Amino acid sequence: MLPFEKAEYQERVRKVKASMEKQGIEVLLITDPANMNYVSGYDAMSYYVPQGIVVATSLEEPVCIVRLQDLYCATETTWMAEENVTAYPDKYLWEPKVLHVMDFIGDLLKEKGLQDKTIGVEFDAYYFNAHWYKKLEKSLPDAVFKDATALVNWIRGPKSVRELEYMQIAARIVEKTMYNAIERIEAGVRECHVAAEIYSDLVKGTGVYGGEYPSLAPIMPAGERTAGAHFSWTTEGKYQKGQLIYMELSGCYKRYHAPLTRTIFIGEPPERVKETAKVVVEGLNAALSAVKPGITCEEVERAWQTTINKYGLEKESRMGYTVGLSYPPVWTENTAYFKPGEMTLLKPDMTFHMMPGMWLDGYGVAITETLRVTEKGCETITRFPRKLFVK
Amino acid sequence: MLPFEKAEYQERVRKVKASMEKQGIEVLLITDPANMNYVSGYDAMSYYVPQGIVVATSLEEPVCIVRLQDLYCATETTWMAEENVTAYPDKYLWEPKVLHVMDFIGDLLKEKGLQDKTIGVEFDAYYFNAHWYKKLEKSLPDAVFKDATALVNWIRGPKSVRELEYMQIAARIVEKTMYNAIERIEAGVRECHVAAEIYSDLVKGTGVYGGEYPSLAPIMPAGERTAGAHFSWTTEGKYQKGQLIYMELSGCYKRYHAPLTRTIFIGEPPERVKETAKVVVEGLNAALSAVKPGITCEEVERAWQTTINKYGLEKESRMGYTVGLSYPPVWTENTAYFKPGEMTLLKPDMTFHMMPGMWLDGYGVAITETLRVTEKGCETITRFPRKLFVK
Repeated sequence: MLPFEKAEYQERVRKVKASMEKQGIEVLLITDPANMNYVSGYDAMSYYVPQGIVVATSLEEPVCIVRLQDLYCATETTWMAEENVTAYPDKYLWEPKVLHVMDFIGDLLKEKGLQDKTIGVEFDAYYFNAHWYKKLEKSLPDAVFKDATALVNWIRGPKSVRELEYMQIAARIVEKTMYNAIERIEAGVRECHVAAEIYSDLVKGTGVYGGEYPSLAPIMPAGERTAGAHFSWTTEGKYQKGQLIYMELSGCYKRYHAPLTRTIFIGEPPERVKETAKVVVEGLNAALSAVKPGITCEEVERAWQTTINKYGLEKESRMGYTVGLSYPPVWTENTAYFKPGEMTLLKPDMTFHMMPGMWLDGYGVAITETLRVTEKGCETITRFPRKLFVK
Repeated sequence: MLPFEKAEYQERVRKVKASMEKQGIEVLLITDPANMNYVSGYDAMSYYVPQGIVVATSLEEPVCIVRLQDLYCATETTWMAEENVTAYPDKYLWEPKVLHVMDFIGDLLKEKGLQDKTIGVEFDAYYFNAHWYKKLEKSLPDAVFKDATALVNWIRGPKSVRELEYMQIAARIVEKTMYNAIERIEAGVRECHVAAEIYSDLVKGTGVYGGEYPSLAPIMPAGERTAGAHFSWTTEGKYQKGQLIYMELSGCYKRYHAPLTRTIFIGEPPERVKETAKVVVEGLNAALSAVKPGITCEEVERAWQTTINKYGLEKESRMGYTVGLSYPPVWTENTAYFKPGEMTLLKPDMTFHMMPGMWLDGYGVAITETLRVTEKGCETITRFPRKLFVK
């Protein structure tokens, strides 16, 4: 059972080919697992070995290339005809100096007469390293390589009705998880016990819909560790009175994510924490109100920055990014960001994780939402009280 | 609180420098998060942006480079002096055509007078993509780049006493988790509910020791899906009578892993499944008996292959790999493998995940152990009944 109709995948491929033509790319090698999934449906935890999807303007369907061990995963999860799912044996792996998967892919392109084409590759994807590129270049000496980083990512921006449904399910999952986690946090409780329940809730899902593993583990520092942006729980630590905690979590369904962050204080929060939280919420609301089709991403960021500047605060880092389909190591789409200088125009059905977090000296406060750009403005996909939670 | 004494990190750096000198490398840029952790202690979920550790034969301590947002994470988790932990602002990110983190790293090397040295980079690491390499090359036109893939990984092979203690804790975690998961599996139970309890057990840990998130989500296909090697649970599926299930799980403590796989049948297993499981266990035991210092990895694989060949079975893919410290997307060390042609000699305290799995037509059986090479032979770090579990 594929998560989308075949027609939806075919429409995606049509858009990818149109973008390729615009950029003068005849063959596209997709190695980002989210992009692979997007055009083909391929879904398995095999992304730690080289694999890819070839889209060629001259070929009707994409061709999926995986490890032999994963052939069954590929035939089960992709929509293409059997002859467009192919697998390499293990001799192409673990032998960096002899054979490489890129040799297999090169030979496949030769077979199809595509060896001297303009080939787009995702130079800046997580899963296309410098060694693979060297091998691919060597295997296809007559090809012209062109940067196609994020070509597919940009097409993934505006979501279909079905994609939005999956993000809604992911949102219900993360809301339930966040609610329960806040309930459980109190002085004396071990961080790893709360983390265990978070995972359990994320995976159990909503009841009707089970959850999947998110692309990033829960970010949930407590106390001084909130001053660092990417800490998880500690294995032996217990929550303490007077501690600030923030949790950045995401539900995941059919690999679609809906991240949500909230900040919690155990005991009576100091004024500066309450004040920071108030400013963050005000800035978040201002930025949400600014979102509508046709404006630039930087305008959204400006609404946030202007608001917090009034209170003498400033945020150096971006305050949001596109979100949706993804695999580890992260759930961003790596396209548009809410940051100064970002001139991308918002379009209906683009989805963002708006991430206003302040990491100040000794503590951090973050209160975020996943949102969808609507025809006229914006609606949040996640729905959870926007405030500092006090326990 | 660092997970190792400063002296242990310094000893690791000494070994890295010795290997660099042997390979004619004056400066090493480490971007693999496990390698970064190994030499510096750095531990945060920030690996989705470019970051690195510079080790130079001319510098006493490594230099850690992270994103400004992660500076606190770096100062908290590394052992080096404050001046050797540095951070770049967000303007180096999300602007592929303007500034890049590799420009920041290039400037740092220039400041230290290292711009014209022989620089080793991990071309074949997950976290060093083709774009980063192009940027680094451009930023350092006078440098000579040399492949240093797995230079640090190989040093990570033989484990210290403390590292083995962490793997033992990870093993206790995965044994408890596997036991509970097998207990819970029965016809009518939802796959995602068992997955939820698995995560909960992995994260709760042993009681005394909490667990961390493993580098790969649980692999746990059921029924026909066992014919694919890298499926996880389904969100809505329920276990059924007559189904085969295998689960590949890993405990994780201080980022050290101990993977374990077992196969379960609900109801009375067909003869061919019982037979395959028996052969897999016999092959596993034969291979475990073969392990000792001084023999090659391929000899271990041969002991397995010879055993299963007697029963008319054959395994195409490798049947084991080095394991220990890791971050997503996988827990392998990417050095030595149990496979034909692998001439690496076993040394005491190397640790492997011995992975004899058979993916046959329509079903798969896998029964594995994490092991340590001892002075005279081998001991398993994971301890769990080696058999097909029948529910």
